[in-house]
Amino acid sequence: MPRVSQDHLDARRQQILDGARSCFARHGYEGATVRRLEDAIGLSRGAIFHHFRDKESLFLALAEDDAQRMAAVVAEQGLVQVMRDLLTGPSGQRTAGEVPPAAWLGTRLEVSRRLRTDPDFQARWAERSQQLTIATRNRLLRQREAGKLRDDIDVDVLTSFLELVLEGLISYLAKGLPADDLEPVLDLVEESVRRHRREAS
Amino acid sequence: MPRVSQDHLDARRQQILDGARSCFARHGYEGATVRRLEDAIGLSRGAIFHHFRDKESLFLALAEDDAQRMAAVVAEQGLVQVMRDLLTGPSGQRTAGEVPPAAWLGTRLEVSRRLRTDPDFQARWAERSQQLTIATRNRLLRQREAGKLRDDIDVDVLTSFLELVLEGLISYLAKGLPADDLEPVLDLVEESVRRHRREAS
Repeated sequence: MPRVSQDHLDARRQQILDGARSCFARHGYEGATVRRLEDAIGLSRGAIFHHFRDKESLFLALAEDDAQRMAAVVAEQGLVQVMRDLLTGPSGQRTAGEVPPAAWLGTRLEVSRRLRTDPDFQARWAERSQQLTIATRNRLLRQREAGKLRDDIDVDVLTSFLELVLEGLISYLAKGLPADDLEPVLDLVEESVRRHRREAS
Repeated sequence: MPRVSQDHLDARRQQILDGARSCFARHGYEGATVRRLEDAIGLSRGAIFHHFRDKESLFLALAEDDAQRMAAVVAEQGLVQVMRDLLTGPSGQRTAGEVPPAAWLGTRLEVSRRLRTDPDFQARWAERSQQLTIATRNRLLRQREAGKLRDDIDVDVLTSFLELVLEGLISYLAKGLPADDLEPVLDLVEESVRRHRREAS
């Protein structure tokens, strides 16, 4: 029964990614030893590296998986909502398989750190890093068609603006700076890309 | 002649800070060994640590010195101009004693890294980190009095907004991401805090 077998493989793969995510978030890339990965995942190294060639491949698969799921949130709710979730936890019902913002932040911080320190990683990551940008841009294009977006500024500029703010927010949270007063700042960010209703002055 | 003596001390102190700045920016905090500091500054360790108790004190004095000078730029030209300088180099005539943006970025990145990894440093830095915020807030208050700032959003929110974007920009540059297309993004940031002239729609 190849169908069951594929389901089994998929479930096993997901189990590995979920365990690895919490392990990398907690210990960082270097600190996530094979022994710790075994403990967090609940499988032997043989089973883990049957699915992923090595630790680097596992981390990249994880980062890619996160980026894909985050891109799905962006498509539905926009990048500002992703930022709000980072501040306050996700709004409303969590869907199955959704990445908790804190776990996603952990992976993202680890990506940031390795981008600064590891040129090989930088090259491998470059191909995979466009997903969030593309999802953000597509969402903005749809918002513009719906008449909700300001139309005096290029969509690429608005996309870069939102990504720059997200980058700042991630950096804030990474430093442990207080971010609980940032809700009205995100309101301003959202308003800055929307079609305006304020009176001219 | 105590006057001359004080001038001499001040000049020596500045020589140490300038050399240390380039040394920390190039090698990072841990990599800036005493030997490298001697080379970069052109003084013996005895002379250096006559002026500063230890490497930590030297780094904090440097970060404080940078923050003070950066606050002076903010007071005169605003935080968005600081960001523009980070992208393109300083505009117009450089004044004597001004910190080049690249050198300031180096110190700032080192501060960011140590904030994440060193709780003691976090405590010592907290007292000193408010200068740029205060300078930004004061500048915005003056702009509001002059009728140039939007008046429907609290100045603290606008200050946090600008600081968040700066944080993102620093993180971008730290990762070596392309930042040369960010000029129009900074135009949008600047416009977002200004009194608007766009027509309502």
